[in-house]
Amino acid sequence: MTLTFTDPKSLDHDTIEEGTAFAPRFDAHGLIPVVTIEAGTNDVLMVAHMNAETLSLTLETGIAHYWSRSRRAIWKKGETSGELQEVVELRTDCDQDCIVMAVRQTGRGAACHTGRKSCFYRRVSVAGVEARLEDTGLPRLFDPKAVYGS
Amino acid sequence: MTLTFTDPKSLDHDTIEEGTAFAPRFDAHGLIPVVTIEAGTNDVLMVAHMNAETLSLTLETGIAHYWSRSRRAIWKKGETSGELQEVVELRTDCDQDCIVMAVRQTGRGAACHTGRKSCFYRRVSVAGVEARLEDTGLPRLFDPKAVYGS
Repeated sequence: MTLTFTDPKSLDHDTIEEGTAFAPRFDAHGLIPVVTIEAGTNDVLMVAHMNAETLSLTLETGIAHYWSRSRRAIWKKGETSGELQEVVELRTDCDQDCIVMAVRQTGRGAACHTGRKSCFYRRVSVAGVEARLEDTGLPRLFDPKAVYGS
Repeated sequence: MTLTFTDPKSLDHDTIEEGTAFAPRFDAHGLIPVVTIEAGTNDVLMVAHMNAETLSLTLETGIAHYWSRSRRAIWKKGETSGELQEVVELRTDCDQDCIVMAVRQTGRGAACHTGRKSCFYRRVSVAGVEARLEDTGLPRLFDPKAVYGS
């Protein structure tokens, strides 16, 4: 089964913004950015992309499937690491060119391939004209070398 | 004053992921996506883009400046509506191609041009093979016609 989405070109501006038709505006590469947050805390875990196929797979199965731009392949999150993401809610924005997906992170609770809960483990600090990064202290929940073997 | 960022091409993979150099990986259009969240609640307010100039402006002034892709211009958020965003923290992800920015939303508390707190005011629901949108009930905090005059 594959879900059908409305073609955004078939809708006027007001219908895209206020209507009930889900008309995801995929970009020139057929992708839409997805902000994945932890259900409950709203912590941003990661940002990735879906195409129509993986968006459909995600909605059908309730398990997050992304499109890997580097591997050009369907990316069932956690297939290697065991850190599957169970979808709780999927929202889109006013112009339907982005998705926020609330999930329950399974496994050891690490959405990031570095073994941390979130990919956003560094904050920017400014000193003079230079911007640098500081670790926010998120612990590693797994050893990436042991999990990915490299 | 303009902040200097490290060129990511000058860094190896491990240094990008674990180092202290801020080396934002702007895309082919010179842009980086920014997920703007409300400090405290972590609610996702909006997703937009910055280029090097508006990222620098944001860090220097502590007020969110984006790059408007439709207008091809610097977009000081809230300049028309009064809904400025005060930056609390800016984080980047493992491969430094995305930013999460925590803000205090000023004005009436509406980040979305539709007058709502967040742009993500509709959830996706699936019925059979069709995906549709449901309003999550976020109230309008201002009347966009009165604010933007259209």
